[in-house]
Amino acid sequence: MKVTKEVERWGVFELSLAGPDDGNPFVDIQFGARFRIGTQEFEADGFYDGDGVYRVRFMPETEGVWTYTTVSGCRYLDKIVGEFHCTPPSAGNHGPVRVKDETLFGYADGTRYFPLGTTCYVWHLQDGELREKTLQTLKSSPFNKLRMCLFPKSYLFNPDEPKHYPFDGSPRDGFDLAKFNPAYFGELERHVLALSELGIQADLILLHPYDKGRWGFDRMNAEQDERYLRYTLARLAAYRNVWWSLANEYDLMTEKKPEDWDRYFRIVQECDYGNHLRSIHNCRERYDYGKPWVTHASIQTNDVKAVSGCTRNYGKPVVIDECGYEGNIHTRWGSLTPEEMVCRIWEGTFRGGYVTHGETYVHPDDILWWSHGGELHGASVPRIAFLARLLAEAPDSIKYCTARYDASTLEIAGDFYFQYFGPHRFAFREFAFPEGTYKADLIDTWNMTVTPLEGRFEGRSRIELPSELYYALRIQRVNEDSNAITGE
Amino acid sequence: MKVTKEVERWGVFELSLAGPDDGNPFVDIQFGARFRIGTQEFEADGFYDGDGVYRVRFMPETEGVWTYTTVSGCRYLDKIVGEFHCTPPSAGNHGPVRVKDETLFGYADGTRYFPLGTTCYVWHLQDGELREKTLQTLKSSPFNKLRMCLFPKSYLFNPDEPKHYPFDGSPRDGFDLAKFNPAYFGELERHVLALSELGIQADLILLHPYDKGRWGFDRMNAEQDERYLRYTLARLAAYRNVWWSLANEYDLMTEKKPEDWDRYFRIVQECDYGNHLRSIHNCRERYDYGKPWVTHASIQTNDVKAVSGCTRNYGKPVVIDECGYEGNIHTRWGSLTPEEMVCRIWEGTFRGGYVTHGETYVHPDDILWWSHGGELHGASVPRIAFLARLLAEAPDSIKYCTARYDASTLEIAGDFYFQYFGPHRFAFREFAFPEGTYKADLIDTWNMTVTPLEGRFEGRSRIELPSELYYALRIQRVNEDSNAITGE
Repeated sequence: MKVTKEVERWGVFELSLAGPDDGNPFVDIQFGARFRIGTQEFEADGFYDGDGVYRVRFMPETEGVWTYTTVSGCRYLDKIVGEFHCTPPSAGNHGPVRVKDETLFGYADGTRYFPLGTTCYVWHLQDGELREKTLQTLKSSPFNKLRMCLFPKSYLFNPDEPKHYPFDGSPRDGFDLAKFNPAYFGELERHVLALSELGIQADLILLHPYDKGRWGFDRMNAEQDERYLRYTLARLAAYRNVWWSLANEYDLMTEKKPEDWDRYFRIVQECDYGNHLRSIHNCRERYDYGKPWVTHASIQTNDVKAVSGCTRNYGKPVVIDECGYEGNIHTRWGSLTPEEMVCRIWEGTFRGGYVTHGETYVHPDDILWWSHGGELHGASVPRIAFLARLLAEAPDSIKYCTARYDASTLEIAGDFYFQYFGPHRFAFREFAFPEGTYKADLIDTWNMTVTPLEGRFEGRSRIELPSELYYALRIQRVNEDSNAITGE
Repeated sequence: MKVTKEVERWGVFELSLAGPDDGNPFVDIQFGARFRIGTQEFEADGFYDGDGVYRVRFMPETEGVWTYTTVSGCRYLDKIVGEFHCTPPSAGNHGPVRVKDETLFGYADGTRYFPLGTTCYVWHLQDGELREKTLQTLKSSPFNKLRMCLFPKSYLFNPDEPKHYPFDGSPRDGFDLAKFNPAYFGELERHVLALSELGIQADLILLHPYDKGRWGFDRMNAEQDERYLRYTLARLAAYRNVWWSLANEYDLMTEKKPEDWDRYFRIVQECDYGNHLRSIHNCRERYDYGKPWVTHASIQTNDVKAVSGCTRNYGKPVVIDECGYEGNIHTRWGSLTPEEMVCRIWEGTFRGGYVTHGETYVHPDDILWWSHGGELHGASVPRIAFLARLLAEAPDSIKYCTARYDASTLEIAGDFYFQYFGPHRFAFREFAFPEGTYKADLIDTWNMTVTPLEGRFEGRSRIELPSELYYALRIQRVNEDSNAITGE
């Protein structure tokens, strides 16, 4: 019996116990623990990790001394008690991301979180050198969320077998879907942890259709799906950077019925005491993101303008997790210019949503960032970093304003207006400012320049613009006291 | 009494009669005529043209000797009989445009008509020099349809009073909506005729919201609207190049109720023996174009991809009569790049619809093509001419194919495939050709080049592409006999 005596807030407490290794412990043995501090009590499922080892993990959210008691039908694993001390979080640990103020995201410690995601579906199943390269690329990127599949992927540019599988067996001999492969999950966890160390949320896709019966993980029955979900939750719910994405393009998984997804959501909700974010991603037909177990929408659409309507309708944050990718492959979704990728990300952002990046350039060895990770070859990423910088400079409370028909605007009325013009080459814009004096910066979102405009603006004002693509305006009320000081 | 003794097929027969000029003949006197040839009989309303002159016009569709009898409550105008000879149409006269094969357009004589429209809302109300310039510009343009408003327009860049009005009166003294201004309509007719001589359809917008009570023509009551519609139809239904557009942005005319539009459609249908095309144009809320009195849809949307779904849903031709305009004014709809304008026109076309051009560049004298006509300053027009040329070269029966998900395609399966890639920079495309040998041309829609690709293609083929924007592929089956002759 191993006990970690100190765990930081939102860190991973883990208890490992030795137990029986005969029969099929994945099915035969129920095991978990109750964790208590003060009047709070949480239940966490444990899991069998192979070789007679049983573990239970827990992410404490309250500092102080926690006690626990294990619960199992197996006497070796039952009623084991202990305690650990939850210490303050270390630097850079802000806790899990949650929904804040209806349509925004924030870390549990109150720090603002603005998702700028990317997509590397099966980067964790590539060879070691490539995985290392992916992490290096991410480290110097603006991305703070990554969509990845739990299961291997059989699809365009992904014809190979993965080096290992989530279940016991092989394609030749078949898989025993009642027996997990702990090594597969252990490796997955190391990758989730590596992302956490880079400050990146792992948007974990639990099920997906890119299998089509090749391995059969897309067509498990209800019992198998449920066991898989519970096992995955038991292993991963203690990682603070995990988001649950029930499926990618769920509507292409024709073996599932709509009510299956509702049930799976409730299983995830029930098993996850840590209350991580939960969503599901569509291809054509949207899931009803208004359902109570969905924390945010995770939509596919090439029309990012839809984001403002969706946000209003669902009253939840809306992430466009696929709007097409920068690249030049032979599909519509994989052949956007970097200009268009950047424009979609800015447009969606300025409509109060969040838009995820992806890259699909033809590569001599078929290594495409969108699926395999590796290096980024495109031109959109520095522009996304520029957006990230400008968002960080803006007040936390800027929100999408539905009243600005002709240009998407994030604003704090009377104080701060941030307006994106995208594909519209305005020669000028007219404003009717509330009382006060305003200054403006012209922002070239493609060339990444911020140019303060001469003069000050009041009441009805006309601002001349360069009639070029991809500009934005940032307008701020001038604080008259500070003017006096700076001599403006 | 003046009788035109010879009229070509689809030409204008006109009978003028002298009658009373006291009271208000526009309201007091009913006047019309019955036209007969063989077993066919048509009724045409006449109209009062001022100064004691009454006219009735008729567009004969059958060659031979027609007889007519006037009908009026006024004894001077009643039971006047006569005949005229309808001769074969002159060169270039193909008759009115009608719907053909459900979703296509064709002239009455069977010639294909592919609408490539533009927008000059009130060009006919500008000064003479500007109107002449508009006609010169149109003459060397690819456009064969023009959207224009019957009433004057009060809107952005249109602050001035027109030089005359459709009704008796003035803004200062008010208008007598029961008395038309024949001079206004006479001038309108000369402009419609001038367009006809250039082979351009006049898509006449009967009502519009760009008045807001300034003159009050947008808020006439039901009786006034009906009288106006009947008078306009009586004057203009004999012009073969007229299309009826009940309104522009009808849903912004908040004084009208939805059932008003249905009734107005039925009035137009009833009065127009010539069965010209009928539609109505929306801003946000689409009219139900499935209604039986609508011949085609005339939609506003910036997403031209909607055209294929609309065509399928309505089973009628779908014209996107506003998708935004090339220009740089301060509105979203008036600030598209020429690349985007061209891309939208190609994309809509290759989805089986029709997309209308417009141009809104800031101008020192506020002369914008979209409203005033004049000169074109943009770069989209030669590219639209290039599209027109390629469409003319393609077989008449090419149709949109819903099966090509990744690129909009007009095709005749097995024979001819015309595929547009627009904003997608494909490095290659894969095809599975039916039996036969195919040749392909790479088309750069922006630089207007057609480059025959080397080699022939059969079965599963991969065609390399330049990974650049705005390309299309034209693929044609090679006729083996002709190969033998040309030595290919």
